[in-house]
Amino acid sequence: MHIPLYFAATHVDELTLRDQTVVVIDVLRAATTIAVALSNGAKEIIPVNTVERAVKISGSLFGDHILRGGERNGRLIEGFNLGNSPDEYTTEKVRGKAIIYSTTNGSGAIDKAKYGRNVLICSFVNMASVLRFLRTHKGDVTILCSGNNGRFSMEDSVCAGMLISRLVESEQDLDLSDAAQASLALFRSFGRSIPKMIRSSEHGQFLIQIGHEKDLDLCASVDCMDILPVLSGNVIRARKEADLIPSGNPVVRIE
Amino acid sequence: MHIPLYFAATHVDELTLRDQTVVVIDVLRAATTIAVALSNGAKEIIPVNTVERAVKISGSLFGDHILRGGERNGRLIEGFNLGNSPDEYTTEKVRGKAIIYSTTNGSGAIDKAKYGRNVLICSFVNMASVLRFLRTHKGDVTILCSGNNGRFSMEDSVCAGMLISRLVESEQDLDLSDAAQASLALFRSFGRSIPKMIRSSEHGQFLIQIGHEKDLDLCASVDCMDILPVLSGNVIRARKEADLIPSGNPVVRIE
Repeated sequence: MHIPLYFAATHVDELTLRDQTVVVIDVLRAATTIAVALSNGAKEIIPVNTVERAVKISGSLFGDHILRGGERNGRLIEGFNLGNSPDEYTTEKVRGKAIIYSTTNGSGAIDKAKYGRNVLICSFVNMASVLRFLRTHKGDVTILCSGNNGRFSMEDSVCAGMLISRLVESEQDLDLSDAAQASLALFRSFGRSIPKMIRSSEHGQFLIQIGHEKDLDLCASVDCMDILPVLSGNVIRARKEADLIPSGNPVVRIE
Repeated sequence: MHIPLYFAATHVDELTLRDQTVVVIDVLRAATTIAVALSNGAKEIIPVNTVERAVKISGSLFGDHILRGGERNGRLIEGFNLGNSPDEYTTEKVRGKAIIYSTTNGSGAIDKAKYGRNVLICSFVNMASVLRFLRTHKGDVTILCSGNNGRFSMEDSVCAGMLISRLVESEQDLDLSDAAQASLALFRSFGRSIPKMIRSSEHGQFLIQIGHEKDLDLCASVDCMDILPVLSGNVIRARKEADLIPSGNPVVRIE
């Protein structure tokens, strides 16, 4: 099992990811928010790169079933229904809805993986579900960290390292790239307290500054959601056959 | 003192580095080879991005004083005088010569930093000299790892982490980016044996496979050369006012 890893979505060409199994990681906050939205009954998430495209697409669809969500530089986009805080995506707001979704880093990373064979959206909250898929799948896995405006981000890299550390426990024949080795070492260095690591990261500090500190605790909650968001045909849906979540892990629901 | 850090030269735009003090790191092998060439009396190194440009430039210059050096994918380039093994750059061959120099990663990284205010070429062999400059300079420092074909490379990142660990010892007010924090942690994880880390890196393994294993030991020798290669006006020369190397560090000379 070979594990290429990229520390930001801009570091790889989309054709490199063609036909690969790709795990897209964006801890703060896209992958966490997508997990919450689908857990709370959103029908699908449609990631788009630009605000202009989000407006164009949603304008041509039937209004009552469509929401626009996301952020630019951490803040709500004018004319959008939802920002990018996970707790905005309540059952009341999102059940049965399609959400056109555009964020600074995460939606671009998901778009970069669009030619992948299996594209899984991962953060700390749903890592157990992603791992179950990977252990069944058995093939090579490319890990694509969203990063922060094209730069390395600690929280995505430590999340990748946690995923790898769990694969190391169960897989015999892992071939780790330099970047995968580095992520694993970073998880071992900074993974003892995920909330502390997230708070002290550049992106965590930025979110605290702009008033989104409350989002960080949920983003740091490991294995709290049994949901496997999968991109297929440019749309993210919950994979239905996800197994039961292992006992002992609380399921967080935001109502 | 703020320390932005990039894990590969392709991860940053050249205008981001404009007017910055930039430390370009390429352990395997460009930065090591440049240190050796200048230590052995080469007049200057002229880094160029493409083989075509190297041929064009050297063809228009006076032949006896010009050499062409470098590699593509680790191997000697047809029509070039020298490959990229440090021990090819002997005093006999390089003294007084200008070397047109093109490599897969390193020369591109150096080119990326061309608009920097101070651009220093660094590897393990000359880290003490680079540190002396930085301690005198006192301003922000951007660290640019060359990386490996646009990807993260362990040896450059650990070298960056060693540089940062030494700055941490002497500087009071360091503001480390996520990437700088990560490099520091990687140095603490893998820096106990630099030769072992280099050998097990992807690039180290590749060089062993193509017959350049002998290069790795020199590339892993910390503080063995008192030389500060500086890029100015697209030419790399040894900075003349370098202090004496601290006692206890052997000086390696390849004759």
